[in-house]
Amino acid sequence: MSTLNSENATTLENAMQLMIQTFHKYSGNEGDKYTLSKTELKDLLTQELGNYLGHAQDKDAVEKVMGDLDSNNDGEVDFSEFVILVGALTVACNDFFQEYNPDKGGKKE
Amino acid sequence: MSTLNSENATTLENAMQLMIQTFHKYSGNEGDKYTLSKTELKDLLTQELGNYLGHAQDKDAVEKVMGDLDSNNDGEVDFSEFVILVGALTVACNDFFQEYNPDKGGKKE
Repeated sequence: MSTLNSENATTLENAMQLMIQTFHKYSGNEGDKYTLSKTELKDLLTQELGNYLGHAQDKDAVEKVMGDLDSNNDGEVDFSEFVILVGALTVACNDFFQEYNPDKGGKKE
Repeated sequence: MSTLNSENATTLENAMQLMIQTFHKYSGNEGDKYTLSKTELKDLLTQELGNYLGHAQDKDAVEKVMGDLDSNNDGEVDFSEFVILVGALTVACNDFFQEYNPDKGGKKE
């Protein structure tokens, strides 16, 4: 069958692979290797999203993110819950850049 | 203020930036520069997700994706709708790799 080959992957396909790699870099550290425990989530947030989340690295923030993401309340964040977090952050980031884009006047309504 | 600096961005932050860059590479081609028209969506799907979507490059597939994503029915896909598509594809891709991971037996329940 045809497979995904990172050698000829597009920019967007690379982005998707980077999300998958990042999740599994942390999810495999303890417990279920396909989900993030609270400790693994904290490590991921601190080490991978420090530039975005900045000051939100305290314990309460991790509890809040875990509570928001863990839709089935099992104390673990699975990959689809992780993708929702990354998606929400990316939308927020994109909104920020559009908001401060000096070329915004060119937008056609 | 502190800004996002791609020089010291993490892997995950790079992935987020790649998603934003990819969207705007196509959204600026015609009409509203912050949304994808049907033509822009087709170009993006064909050129950026060819390895993933493979044979689904016909007109009906683009209509279907547009219909599914365009939640406010304005005939345009905005960035948050695009992120939902990429997220869903990434989850599907991750499921595929987990399913075929020979190391799956190591999973703790």
